[in-house]
Amino acid sequence: MRIVVLTGGIGGARFLVGVRAHARQLGAEVTAVVNVGDDVRMHGLQICPDLDSVMYTLGGAADPERGWGRTGETWVVKEELAKYGAEPGWFGLGDKDTATHLVRTTLLSAGYPLSQVTAALCDRWQPGLTLLPATDDRLETHVVVDVDGERRAIHFQEWWVRHRGDLPTHRFVFVGADTAKPAPGVLEAIGAADVVLLAPSNPVVSVAPILAVPGIREAVADGPAPVVGVSPVIAGAPVRGMADRCLATVGVPVTATGVGTLYGARADGGLLDGWLVDTSDADTDVPGVRTRAVPLWMRDEQATAAMVAAALELAGVS
Amino acid sequence: MRIVVLTGGIGGARFLVGVRAHARQLGAEVTAVVNVGDDVRMHGLQICPDLDSVMYTLGGAADPERGWGRTGETWVVKEELAKYGAEPGWFGLGDKDTATHLVRTTLLSAGYPLSQVTAALCDRWQPGLTLLPATDDRLETHVVVDVDGERRAIHFQEWWVRHRGDLPTHRFVFVGADTAKPAPGVLEAIGAADVVLLAPSNPVVSVAPILAVPGIREAVADGPAPVVGVSPVIAGAPVRGMADRCLATVGVPVTATGVGTLYGARADGGLLDGWLVDTSDADTDVPGVRTRAVPLWMRDEQATAAMVAAALELAGVS
Repeated sequence: MRIVVLTGGIGGARFLVGVRAHARQLGAEVTAVVNVGDDVRMHGLQICPDLDSVMYTLGGAADPERGWGRTGETWVVKEELAKYGAEPGWFGLGDKDTATHLVRTTLLSAGYPLSQVTAALCDRWQPGLTLLPATDDRLETHVVVDVDGERRAIHFQEWWVRHRGDLPTHRFVFVGADTAKPAPGVLEAIGAADVVLLAPSNPVVSVAPILAVPGIREAVADGPAPVVGVSPVIAGAPVRGMADRCLATVGVPVTATGVGTLYGARADGGLLDGWLVDTSDADTDVPGVRTRAVPLWMRDEQATAAMVAAALELAGVS
Repeated sequence: MRIVVLTGGIGGARFLVGVRAHARQLGAEVTAVVNVGDDVRMHGLQICPDLDSVMYTLGGAADPERGWGRTGETWVVKEELAKYGAEPGWFGLGDKDTATHLVRTTLLSAGYPLSQVTAALCDRWQPGLTLLPATDDRLETHVVVDVDGERRAIHFQEWWVRHRGDLPTHRFVFVGADTAKPAPGVLEAIGAADVVLLAPSNPVVSVAPILAVPGIREAVADGPAPVVGVSPVIAGAPVRGMADRCLATVGVPVTATGVGTLYGARADGGLLDGWLVDTSDADTDVPGVRTRAVPLWMRDEQATAAMVAAALELAGVS
């Protein structure tokens, strides 16, 4: 069996731990197509927050308490940059992380595409599945906001990390999406999949930028594999992060029904065959989509693997 | 009074501490023209060992025990790079140092010349004198050696740090020197100087690359200011570093007389009016050059300032 997962960073990474565990039991192959919209160049370093979150988490090196970055991280580089007055100072650039970014940036500068660079970094982390960036091209999520009474577009990281999303926010723009091409292997993996899963990631700024790469949405919607999404909203609140702020910006209710309806039924030009929601959202109703309610809190690997088993069952491929 | 010092890294940096101390007593202005031949790009970072040694030392942040780099340095980035298998692994890339290199590389990438970048970094370190790279252009010292029976040119840092100079060595090449231009301010400082000092730096790989920039040697040799050199050799051994290996390569005896003769008398097309040697080298004889013997061990700021006073006296400008 071949499983493809469209995913963002931290929440998606935890979900992938469960996918990997369940796939091992099935002898299935997993390909994760990862959002690159959060990627940003800072201090000359090319930083890929979602790819790194997935890589570190699957490599057993993610900090479970802070929720992002590396275990045992230190902050000497960041403190020194601040002493030089180097902007931006609000980004959490750890020392271990810096090494990852240095290796990545060096390889990118040498002409290797991000997909190959990611594979090279994964030589160390051995994630146990194939990690593909959605695209090798530049695709950045920018946010149209009001700052000091002026309308501006700022990078998603600035909106998210610096401002905690707490600005009058008008819309998200996926800069570069028009001309981006799916990274090598992405369309092939979707085309050969037995099932496509949408991780419980932020639908607006994690999954949407993946689908914004021309060809990817079509490959999923028109492909042979059933598509099951896992709700990132439980009982009217995001499982983690600030999906509520993002959903509000695009006018979608922060409910399992709201997000499921945003993705839409495949028969109606949407993406979903099935929509997995939490037991507290058993009344979820997305027209044209099979819904199933199971516990969606990713407490540990076993609980998460059980969610994945339910998703595959809902897809009719288990 | 205006003092110009041509200098390499660590030994030169300690010398400059004495120059600064003595210059403060005199109310003199100091410009240090610093070697860039050691500069190297590693892991995408532009590293300027001599500029950094001078900057950190004058900024009170140099590690006096290790002899290079920063006090309280940590090595997380380097250890992580090694875990990725990122080459080269033999270079001492500290975390604090990494921040300096990130700031420098970012500014260089944005189009600022090294001289302006150095001034920006010095905003933090307040070295108390003007630091100028010899050139803003790429000038790298490479070393022609035999490795595994094959003749190759390797970067000076590889020769020095990785191999400790312990290879059959044929010559030093200043790559880029032909077309390099003196950095803005260098010729002006030399032309306006009341005295030019050659720091007790390695004559072959620290001072020679400065003089290899077309125009600098001429400005010193033909300029109005008297020129006094300070011997980097005491009693037949280099004060620090591996000047002996470098001198052997160019066929110069490791003696105060040997180095003084390498620089040569100004009247004979060389550089020196005066040559300051250690009391143990009182028998030094460089034809056409006034020699004076004083204690040359740079034990502390006061002892070094006394050397500088003696150098100025020898130059006839004190």
